[in-house]
Amino acid sequence: MSNITLAILAEELQLSIATVSKALRDSHEISTATKKRVLKKAKDVNYQVNHFASSLRKKKSKTIAVVMPEIANNFFSLVINGVESVAQQKGYHVLIYLSHENFNREKAITAELQNGRVDGIMASLSMETTSTEHLEELQKKNMPLVLFDRVAENMAVPKVTTNDFESAFIAVKHLLENGCRRIAFLSVSNCLSINKNRLKGYKAALKANAVPFNSELLVQCTNDDAKNTGQLKKLLSRKKRPDGIFASVEKLAVPCYEVCNELNIRIPEDIKIISYSNLQLAALLAPSMTTIAQPAFDMGRESASILFKLIEKKGVSPIPENTVLKSTLIPRNSTVAIHK
Amino acid sequence: MSNITLAILAEELQLSIATVSKALRDSHEISTATKKRVLKKAKDVNYQVNHFASSLRKKKSKTIAVVMPEIANNFFSLVINGVESVAQQKGYHVLIYLSHENFNREKAITAELQNGRVDGIMASLSMETTSTEHLEELQKKNMPLVLFDRVAENMAVPKVTTNDFESAFIAVKHLLENGCRRIAFLSVSNCLSINKNRLKGYKAALKANAVPFNSELLVQCTNDDAKNTGQLKKLLSRKKRPDGIFASVEKLAVPCYEVCNELNIRIPEDIKIISYSNLQLAALLAPSMTTIAQPAFDMGRESASILFKLIEKKGVSPIPENTVLKSTLIPRNSTVAIHK
Repeated sequence: MSNITLAILAEELQLSIATVSKALRDSHEISTATKKRVLKKAKDVNYQVNHFASSLRKKKSKTIAVVMPEIANNFFSLVINGVESVAQQKGYHVLIYLSHENFNREKAITAELQNGRVDGIMASLSMETTSTEHLEELQKKNMPLVLFDRVAENMAVPKVTTNDFESAFIAVKHLLENGCRRIAFLSVSNCLSINKNRLKGYKAALKANAVPFNSELLVQCTNDDAKNTGQLKKLLSRKKRPDGIFASVEKLAVPCYEVCNELNIRIPEDIKIISYSNLQLAALLAPSMTTIAQPAFDMGRESASILFKLIEKKGVSPIPENTVLKSTLIPRNSTVAIHK
Repeated sequence: MSNITLAILAEELQLSIATVSKALRDSHEISTATKKRVLKKAKDVNYQVNHFASSLRKKKSKTIAVVMPEIANNFFSLVINGVESVAQQKGYHVLIYLSHENFNREKAITAELQNGRVDGIMASLSMETTSTEHLEELQKKNMPLVLFDRVAENMAVPKVTTNDFESAFIAVKHLLENGCRRIAFLSVSNCLSINKNRLKGYKAALKANAVPFNSELLVQCTNDDAKNTGQLKKLLSRKKRPDGIFASVEKLAVPCYEVCNELNIRIPEDIKIISYSNLQLAALLAPSMTTIAQPAFDMGRESASILFKLIEKKGVSPIPENTVLKSTLIPRNSTVAIHK
């Protein structure tokens, strides 16, 4: 980094620091001739506005943070694309933090973000997160905060989600209509908002179709891929095997396919599979996978737009507390009805 | 954000600003009793160290930037995972910038990063990037810089790449050994280092197997998915159709499968396909796809480690200018030999 400061520049030009500063900001108080002189000198000595000094003056970091469980996942990387599309327009910088589904790490991240590094925060909770004190701390300090996808439902902050209940209802109804009667529900947490609402949708669809709820078909996975594969193998080796799988998050869909392949269980003949997923490749799997596609990019864009409204506090129109963007069922071969 | 500054805290405690500041930094110059008083007061009034004031003093932003073409792509999101694993250990923050394969945007990003916002930069070039002046600007200002994957080969900065020539050679050799004679080479740019070296590997493998090089089989795609699909349709509708495809980047593999499906071209019977890819799902495609898996996570981790060495200027051991991490061929059904 160049160490040439505004002061040195002023000395070399034999002008006051205030004059140089105003000239660099193209102020009307400074003559065109002086501005030209200052700009030429600044260029000659490779002068760059010191970002931190400038931030201190404006009390804005022009930076937002996105705190989320992981990134090597189609859903979250599409969200970032959406966030970036808005941040770039606004001239904002985007810091990425990964909790790796770990509550303590999520707390450490939000604690560190309270000190002026960012002007606002977007967060999606880890699967371990059971309390929201760390987020309430941010609220107390008036930090602009938007939750997305995995939200804390009781907090009075803007939340951007998909229609979890309704999309789960539609997915399970689809499985039932195509002949399933023993549908396993795979989740990653008991506590996450998405899980609760998707489970409610699952139960409501069973009820609407007069299929009794069976708690043995609820399988809670973890963040450990090897363990999940083990659990799925157990599930699919049961005497009374499920005839349908409803995977409530994308990361559980691939292991289902892998385990079925390994155990020679045919999809969709022996078992039907549906999963939340944004993978373009779902259509090319053997068999192609029926998915519930979430509006990931739009969720990122919308969350960021709301966050910038909070940061800029522009206008008098109230910011909606709940924004719900619809997911779409895309039926493919993994759930096709088999006529015997 | 709380507006309580160090000055107000000092006034309330009737101490000097220097004393309060030293107490908060746990200086040995301050008595334990005073430290306790300061810490209690700071807690009472919700005092937070102002990040920017603190950065200005230390001349460190504790932030690095990663500039890359896109993020909704398995390779780049795995790289970020690798970078984050090191940054988190070092207590550093990670800014993400996407060029969206646009040269002007890449230039605008690097220009803005010269002003003290970050302590170092990792970059992977856009497919449009043909000159490196914007990176040389960073060098002139002594900005720590590491290039990864898509690098500027002539620049004297640390570069982390995969064995592009060798892995392409092995991939094309694999296609030739399984019966291909007309192998199309799909790329996204003429200029990128990865493209040049993979093309050299392709040509060398043909030569080693006495198959003449045919420039009609070089297909340069763009950043426009619809256009790429159109180009691939044309390629695969030719009278003298290729019998093998070597996709030099992951984003071209999926359209190949889609177009083959649409045109009823059987993989691997009519055409064999191999692609650089890190997708876990490659094994589950119909047919499973032969891939060259890049060490994406390790490339991110290694690049970040080198960047931190540059930032910290620790030790006297020279930093290697070229770090090459090996990719691995994973043979699957899309390239299986057909015995007629």
